[in-house]
Amino acid sequence: MSIAFLPSLRCQLPVLLFLLQGAFIAVFNLFFTFEDPSTHFDTSNATTTAEGLDDLENIFPFFKDVHIMLFAGLGLMLSFLKLYGFGGIAVNFLIANFAIQWSMVVQGFFYHFRHGVIVLKLRNVLEAEFAGVTALISAGAVLGRTSPVQLLLLTAVEIPLFVVNDWLINEYFHIIDVGGTVAIHIFSCYFGLGVAQILYRPSLRKRHLKEVTTSNTDLLSLLGTIFLWIFWPSFNSVLAKTREAQHRAIVNTFLALSSGTITTFAMSSLIDKQGRLSLVHLQNASLAGGVAVGVSADLISPGGAFTIGCLASISCSLGFQYLSPFLAKKIKVQDQCGIHNLHGLPGIIGTVGSIVVILLGPVDTFGLSLHETLYHDGLEGQQPTLGLFGNRETWTAQRQALHQAAALGVTFGVSLFGGYITGLLMRFPCFVHPSKDDFFDDQLYFQVPEDSGTKWISNEELQKHLLVPLKHI
Amino acid sequence: MSIAFLPSLRCQLPVLLFLLQGAFIAVFNLFFTFEDPSTHFDTSNATTTAEGLDDLENIFPFFKDVHIMLFAGLGLMLSFLKLYGFGGIAVNFLIANFAIQWSMVVQGFFYHFRHGVIVLKLRNVLEAEFAGVTALISAGAVLGRTSPVQLLLLTAVEIPLFVVNDWLINEYFHIIDVGGTVAIHIFSCYFGLGVAQILYRPSLRKRHLKEVTTSNTDLLSLLGTIFLWIFWPSFNSVLAKTREAQHRAIVNTFLALSSGTITTFAMSSLIDKQGRLSLVHLQNASLAGGVAVGVSADLISPGGAFTIGCLASISCSLGFQYLSPFLAKKIKVQDQCGIHNLHGLPGIIGTVGSIVVILLGPVDTFGLSLHETLYHDGLEGQQPTLGLFGNRETWTAQRQALHQAAALGVTFGVSLFGGYITGLLMRFPCFVHPSKDDFFDDQLYFQVPEDSGTKWISNEELQKHLLVPLKHI
Amino acid sequence: MSIAFLPSLRCQLPVLLFLLQGAFIAVFNLFFTFEDPSTHFDTSNATTTAEGLDDLENIFPFFKDVHIMLFAGLGLMLSFLKLYGFGGIAVNFLIANFAIQWSMVVQGFFYHFRHGVIVLKLRNVLEAEFAGVTALISAGAVLGRTSPVQLLLLTAVEIPLFVVNDWLINEYFHIIDVGGTVAIHIFSCYFGLGVAQILYRPSLRKRHLKEVTTSNTDLLSLLGTIFLWIFWPSFNSVLAKTREAQHRAIVNTFLALSSGTITTFAMSSLIDKQGRLSLVHLQNASLAGGVAVGVSADLISPGGAFTIGCLASISCSLGFQYLSPFLAKKIKVQDQCGIHNLHGLPGIIGTVGSIVVILLGPVDTFGLSLHETLYHDGLEGQQPTLGLFGNRETWTAQRQALHQAAALGVTFGVSLFGGYITGLLMRFPCFVHPSKDDFFDDQLYFQVPEDSGTKWISNEELQKHLLVPLKHI
Repeated sequence: MSIAFLPSLRCQLPVLLFLLQGAFIAVFNLFFTFEDPSTHFDTSNATTTAEGLDDLENIFPFFKDVHIMLFAGLGLMLSFLKLYGFGGIAVNFLIANFAIQWSMVVQGFFYHFRHGVIVLKLRNVLEAEFAGVTALISAGAVLGRTSPVQLLLLTAVEIPLFVVNDWLINEYFHIIDVGGTVAIHIFSCYFGLGVAQILYRPSLRKRHLKEVTTSNTDLLSLLGTIFLWIFWPSFNSVLAKTREAQHRAIVNTFLALSSGTITTFAMSSLIDKQGRLSLVHLQNASLAGGVAVGVSADLISPGGAFTIGCLASISCSLGFQYLSPFLAKKIKVQDQCGIHNLHGLPGIIGTVGSIVVILLGPVDTFGLSLHETLYHDGLEGQQPTLGLFGNRETWTAQRQALHQAAALGVTFGVSLFGGYITGLLMRFPCFVHPSKDDFFDDQLYFQVPEDSGTKWISNEELQKHLLVPLKHI
Repeated sequence: MSIAFLPSLRCQLPVLLFLLQGAFIAVFNLFFTFEDPSTHFDTSNATTTAEGLDDLENIFPFFKDVHIMLFAGLGLMLSFLKLYGFGGIAVNFLIANFAIQWSMVVQGFFYHFRHGVIVLKLRNVLEAEFAGVTALISAGAVLGRTSPVQLLLLTAVEIPLFVVNDWLINEYFHIIDVGGTVAIHIFSCYFGLGVAQILYRPSLRKRHLKEVTTSNTDLLSLLGTIFLWIFWPSFNSVLAKTREAQHRAIVNTFLALSSGTITTFAMSSLIDKQGRLSLVHLQNASLAGGVAVGVSADLISPGGAFTIGCLASISCSLGFQYLSPFLAKKIKVQDQCGIHNLHGLPGIIGTVGSIVVILLGPVDTFGLSLHETLYHDGLEGQQPTLGLFGNRETWTAQRQALHQAAALGVTFGVSLFGGYITGLLMRFPCFVHPSKDDFFDDQLYFQVPEDSGTKWISNEELQKHLLVPLKHI
Repeated sequence: MSIAFLPSLRCQLPVLLFLLQGAFIAVFNLFFTFEDPSTHFDTSNATTTAEGLDDLENIFPFFKDVHIMLFAGLGLMLSFLKLYGFGGIAVNFLIANFAIQWSMVVQGFFYHFRHGVIVLKLRNVLEAEFAGVTALISAGAVLGRTSPVQLLLLTAVEIPLFVVNDWLINEYFHIIDVGGTVAIHIFSCYFGLGVAQILYRPSLRKRHLKEVTTSNTDLLSLLGTIFLWIFWPSFNSVLAKTREAQHRAIVNTFLALSSGTITTFAMSSLIDKQGRLSLVHLQNASLAGGVAVGVSADLISPGGAFTIGCLASISCSLGFQYLSPFLAKKIKVQDQCGIHNLHGLPGIIGTVGSIVVILLGPVDTFGLSLHETLYHDGLEGQQPTLGLFGNRETWTAQRQALHQAAALGVTFGVSLFGGYITGLLMRFPCFVHPSKDDFFDDQLYFQVPEDSGTKWISNEELQKHLLVPLKHI
């Protein structure tokens, strides 16, 4: 029996990672540089200096916050399963790094390739992290029943698709979406659900034996939620166009999160017959306000943020209680971490909210006519004319509202289609994947300490577990 | 037996939270706005621009630090009990959010209500968080033996009282207190002790069966302490009046914490017969220096900060060892988290220290006569005359010292009285509350994982536990 | 049996700590001040104002990041042992505080003592923290088999030696080393290995019974690694000389860490026969890129950073697998936390890398001739002439490369020699130390909760355990 014909973790993971990292090293050495040499030390060029300053002062603090969210916050949040803690935090660590590097390459060639080189700035790395988030969210839909190899594949496909969709909704639809509600949350959610639908496992109709939490893992997961909660205002505001907009985005995100949190406690207690709070609700619905408010965080009033946060958390709690079981049963989408409840529903509510705000908002909001505000926020840095889609003179609130809706629809279609394709790729039996008995189990991928709570699998047995062909699953 | 006549968590918590959040949404929509429309886009107005800039550059980094302290640091620190971890971190999460929203409303109408609207800035949110801290500290005194409903009540009363007392000691006593040692720590401590005295439980004279920690919960709690420790310099310095004062406040707070930490290890080892360190001491007394130095962090020299930190940690360690048992026995104050040792004693030491510094400090400290320094730090932004309490010409160090002492006394009285009233309100049998067997137990309020370490309470049993009338307690 | 004649924790730790803290309080009160009174309020002095501003805006954010690394990140990372979690995080907390205070004193008198006073700025505290890191790293080599008293001794000797070596390689060798790869990592590594060689314990040839981890401690340790990982760019960039250099140092450190992380997953999977990932590798080798890139982070291109990170993590993984067992067996260096793999090997690779970059780097890197770049980065703020070692006109890349190598060699020699001396001091039987049965056990130093997993040691027994003379060990 030749090992080459049967997938094993050792045959695939190191080979794949060395190939990818080697390729990135080659590409970076060939194409990436820090500064265009001719302008760099031209100190008379005030714009260049201001930009460098901009990255250190305006990007770096947010960059660190986003790091805490991705690596510590999301990592801990995903470590809620008793036997799959490393599968949460460590696999998240791996996928995040691959996603960010891959995004730097894709976005670099897509946006920044000039004169044979790509000039790398901290801002580019931040934008790559935003792209990388999508892979981490999508992976949540199939947490514990996919191998790291399959997740690398998912990331490899999702990142370029994200970049194209992001470009599409910004360039052609001029979407207003400072926090990436549509670009990131809606996209990653339906991409992940597409994958999950293809990877449907009938055996998971009943709760899996290893799908259990402990007080300790639930507490660490809640701590992860709290890290995400603390730094979400940075996430939603870093790409704001003006300082006033950034200030509003920070405060509004905080307000939406805060009202969403109180609403989550209320909903969770209401849903349980004894009024007890569900950890799943607290870990997820507390953040729904941050997702929903992203699309309009720099536009709305404090009261609007409060309202949106409240609605988002209600939808998220109800989603966990009623919609997820329904989706699993009726359309065979098993959404492991409930990303549809945290990213999908609040994202839709937020986008609808942004349409309402744009249509009904007072004309002189913030001292500018809405017309001007839309131009300012939506079109700054764009070409002077809008080409096919309109021009400065004919642009109206109705038009912008329509574009918001269109961008939502396009993103929905692109991501779901991408998810289906990716799911089919991930099903190829040649990729290492767990058998159904070994879902949610660190032992397949990690040398876990002996106290880990399951019986220790022998080497022969382990080999067997990892070699189960997909048809058995 | 109709459920309407007996308090149950599900009848009270969701109703109360929805009512509160609904009211806040209404108030925010009616009264809160981001910017006075007439000045916002008037770019010629340099002051407005500078203020907006001020909030983003000078407030936002500190705002995030205070967030980490309140939500991650304090939440983890309170999760030291084996069976009441969620009761620590999750209830803290809820109360903090309610306290901040409620503070924004109270402070908004108290300080910022003009022309029918309240202009909301990041600085206001930060000030609301400072107010919110008081509720979290006070709640520590009755951790594990009060329901979230009772703690919401505590918060509802404490916040307005804090705002009034804070206004009083600043407006009338011109207290120098950059880090809120008197305004926040002393106030919340004696408020909490007042509540604890009213909620005295004879059954807790012996250690409660569920009042146990584990290595893991103690370690996470120590991690919470360390988060508080790391960001305490931000807490004590954010409201400093000048950049020099802010720099001094940062360094002095670090020095006081550091000398306090070494002192804590020394005291803890000295107190135990075998020289072993107590986790309770490390989790609390390491922070005492930060509490004590708050009142004078922008005034004193590095050596002074070192001295105050050392004295504060000595008092805190001795408080845990000798004073807390004494208070519990003699005046029936059961101080669950030892807030008197961490906030009360170090607060008093710090305030006395500030009086000594003001009276004995060199006249030409920092290149200004003390006389001028006091004006600068204590009176900036105040009305030109001091009215009833003196005027610029007759203001002396003696007078300021007297005012520091008076502010301490007033705060002590107001907070203790407020605590008594609040305790009596919390005792009303209509509010859901735990029976004495269920103190320190997450099961009453959370759907805990099955491994949680206590026997699983059935639904009927749970209903019973939560319905025990107060007279049985 | 009089307790005075036999060392016990209670006889040594509190006494030592009170003496040290008392001495520091005295020294700080006598010599440390915030500002030179004559210049402080001279607002016409633009330089002073700019410097104060510099510390608040340019140092404080980094200062907080370094705090998170030292206290939360490193503390958690060291808490990987099941029975020695407090020995990781709490002892790290103590040693870090002592090391920073002691560094402020030593560096204060060494560098900043003028007119009878030492002016203390936030920058000085930051530099003291960098010095303090060395003690924490070195202590990792003997984690769990030394008492806090012995570690205080280690710190007391190491800090002055670090200051002297740091001064030597900067003043005389003009080393380019923005992130302290040589000054901090190489120094602390070989100092720690020197100590470990002297404290060699034959009984540790076999794995100690208590040298076990749990899923939970491994996960928290990995979280510590992730905190270090997130903030490492701040560590490597804070002392950069220009804003451009700082920007490059931030991005390059991130890139090196990221490529190192993917490489670590690849190597770890490759090394295990079943392809499973080792937690030890993930906890350590993920950070190797940050160590290695420190010496050249502000010089190299993005591709260079990617390459160095990859090589560093390969060396670190192989070090854990092959070199550590070899060193333990052949030259009797038992490196408990594998500091040689994380700090030594990557440090050497980074320094060799910096030599290659300096020798082979393009002449017009970043718009300046290399010649100029070296002057700019290596000599700014130095005396105009280089004295014994050359002058501005004769300085060449070859010369700088030679100096990099010489500084590495000198640091190696000084630190190893220092470690030997310190190890001999630590072996004195008069210092409290654990017997071999009690290695890796919190019970000797902490009042641990009763569930801690080992049988509870009685007081008499504990006394006995701590009193074993060194010859039995």
